[in-house]
Amino acid sequence: MSHPANTSPASDPVENLQTLIRCPSVTPAEGGALTALAAMLEPLGFQVSRMVAREDGTPDVENLYARLGTEGPHLMFAGHTDVVPVGDEADWTYPPFSAEISNGELFGRGAVDMKGGIACFVAAVARHIEAHGAPKGSISFLITGDEEGPSINGTTKLLQWAAERGERWDACLVGEPTNPDTLGDMIKIGRRGSVSGHITVHGVQGHAAYPHLADNAVRGIIKLTEALMCPPFDAGTDNFQPSNLEVTTIDVGNPATNVVPNRASAKFNIRFNDTWTAETVQAEIIRRLDAASADQTLRPGRDPLRYEITWADRPSHVFLTRDDALIQSLTAAIEKTIGRTPALSTTGGTSDARFIKDYCPVVEFGLVGQTMHMVDERVAVADLETLTGIYAEFIEGWFAHAGI
Amino acid sequence: MSHPANTSPASDPVENLQTLIRCPSVTPAEGGALTALAAMLEPLGFQVSRMVAREDGTPDVENLYARLGTEGPHLMFAGHTDVVPVGDEADWTYPPFSAEISNGELFGRGAVDMKGGIACFVAAVARHIEAHGAPKGSISFLITGDEEGPSINGTTKLLQWAAERGERWDACLVGEPTNPDTLGDMIKIGRRGSVSGHITVHGVQGHAAYPHLADNAVRGIIKLTEALMCPPFDAGTDNFQPSNLEVTTIDVGNPATNVVPNRASAKFNIRFNDTWTAETVQAEIIRRLDAASADQTLRPGRDPLRYEITWADRPSHVFLTRDDALIQSLTAAIEKTIGRTPALSTTGGTSDARFIKDYCPVVEFGLVGQTMHMVDERVAVADLETLTGIYAEFIEGWFAHAGI
Ligand SMILES: [Zn+2]
Ligand SMILES: [Zn+2]
Repeated sequence: MSHPANTSPASDPVENLQTLIRCPSVTPAEGGALTALAAMLEPLGFQVSRMVAREDGTPDVENLYARLGTEGPHLMFAGHTDVVPVGDEADWTYPPFSAEISNGELFGRGAVDMKGGIACFVAAVARHIEAHGAPKGSISFLITGDEEGPSINGTTKLLQWAAERGERWDACLVGEPTNPDTLGDMIKIGRRGSVSGHITVHGVQGHAAYPHLADNAVRGIIKLTEALMCPPFDAGTDNFQPSNLEVTTIDVGNPATNVVPNRASAKFNIRFNDTWTAETVQAEIIRRLDAASADQTLRPGRDPLRYEITWADRPSHVFLTRDDALIQSLTAAIEKTIGRTPALSTTGGTSDARFIKDYCPVVEFGLVGQTMHMVDERVAVADLETLTGIYAEFIEGWFAHAGI
Repeated sequence: MSHPANTSPASDPVENLQTLIRCPSVTPAEGGALTALAAMLEPLGFQVSRMVAREDGTPDVENLYARLGTEGPHLMFAGHTDVVPVGDEADWTYPPFSAEISNGELFGRGAVDMKGGIACFVAAVARHIEAHGAPKGSISFLITGDEEGPSINGTTKLLQWAAERGERWDACLVGEPTNPDTLGDMIKIGRRGSVSGHITVHGVQGHAAYPHLADNAVRGIIKLTEALMCPPFDAGTDNFQPSNLEVTTIDVGNPATNVVPNRASAKFNIRFNDTWTAETVQAEIIRRLDAASADQTLRPGRDPLRYEITWADRPSHVFLTRDDALIQSLTAAIEKTIGRTPALSTTGGTSDARFIKDYCPVVEFGLVGQTMHMVDERVAVADLETLTGIYAEFIEGWFAHAGI
């Protein structure tokens, strides 16, 4: 007996997604999600590997790598099966791991971020195989269980693990929810970089009635933080919005109304565009702090302020994908399927694409993100079918381009 | 048998001070200090009253009021026998309540602030009686046990208690340590006012990568606190240094580097001169905050900031004593005793004189304050003798003036 169209194994994105949502894979729990994914991929001919990443002081994390084919060109689909916590389950209309369908919407934690993207790509591969046979090249899935957590035992280690085993890729599509309002709105073709820091100002403690004997650290921290936020770092570039720095906290913790404090600290985060590298943006920050430390507006007649800065963690580097074949295949697939031309955007926060770009060109396209991380996270069932269609067109188009 | 000069009861300031220091009267403990003081005053003819002040949520405090004479003119000496804690006793060269004399210095908690001033005034009164008989008028001691603490159950309540019993005064000398370096440096003839407040800024929480969707409360608090401190409120007046505002703390307490906070708060204290009243300085603060809340430097294109202000406790009102007889008697006594002309100052923090000025003109003059509140608080024995001499001259001079 032959399968009618769209009824071959794993070719229904709705069924795939229900299966995945029913695995409660809140970071760092695997929750059965990778096992369920493996069970979809193996019948399609994928070679599936499971890789557990370990690091002292962090929980072990399970990850999955699966490849169909042995030759190039090689297309990678990347994503994560871990999900953020559900909050108070009582706030949900349907239990968050029940995958209930109601009024044309499928409810559940991870529906859009991003089990939905995985479910659609699996279905698209199944349909491609059904229609055209195995691709002339390779398709792989690089799926982590540590994207919503510290991202230490996830994509970076999995990429390294695979590369050490000889894996090389020609392009990558990340299935994160990239569309603000409607499917087809937006492809992400790059990301701003991100640097965080912590500054501490040292003054001289004293009595509020004798401020000339003291050096109020609050006066210093105000000048330094103001200089960090103003003026703007740049006006934006062709592909990026302006860089922006936010001071996220200032803390002095002085309980005594009569005492001028000798210490104040602040933390900040800057999202920077391709005007800068992590190194040049750090140098500009130091330049601003040094200039502000000598500013006497709030500290008339004072010596330059003493301050310290420490940089938090590793910076996220800015990147912009310049692979025309990749971007054009994806754009054409969207136009052909739904008649809309997506914006090519570099807005928003960081994603695991920042690690992948060191291995191959990468773009991001998935579902509509509006309900991600919220109570009643949900996806329109129609969108799952549409995204599967777009992904299938993309696979066909990319191999056609890449084969040339 | 007759006493030689300076050996009548309580006429030796060193003995008086040793007796008082050996009473461990750390606020709010009486520690025997008021009882010891009463035992010095009663033999001199004083009518001594003890008054315990009570208020919910605060410890009971013992206070003392003593009067010699029943007629006017009426001179009050005001002060406190409570002392600040000693810190780690092991840091002291001599035990802080032992009143050891070494190398011409008398060591002990309260030596200068201000059991020393009380000891000298008692000795001065004793010598005045010995030399001239009882004064032609009245002398009273208004001594609290709650000056170094919250000052709730101290001078204010004691003044009210005495006034309700018909007590009226013509002038007051407060015996706090007023001299920065050398005995005779400085009389205090007024004090700046003090107002404290707490501001809270309300923004909109959001992700650091999408700052346009948020309204970072840190940007608001920086602008408001800067506007409070700059420009200066005034350039000072004939009798006062410039008013000065210090922001004593800024607190946000946001632990998340990626999140822009929706709340930030700050506390401030202003010491203001006679350009202002507590009411006009509060109005100026509101005017500055309202102007800064509309400032768009750090919040381009934003609506005026939402902020709240609460005023801490009661304000301390500014005052300046204009009683020439009082100021001239004291100045003349200092000039006659040690040949120096004291500065007439309004600098420094607040003192209980701010309460007394509502009842009669008040000035402050006592020992050298350098070691007050410190480990190894101490006074030169020679200074005790000199201050006793100054106080005795002052008593004689003031009654001569006031009697006219
Ligand atoms: Zn995600
Ligand atoms: Zn004192």
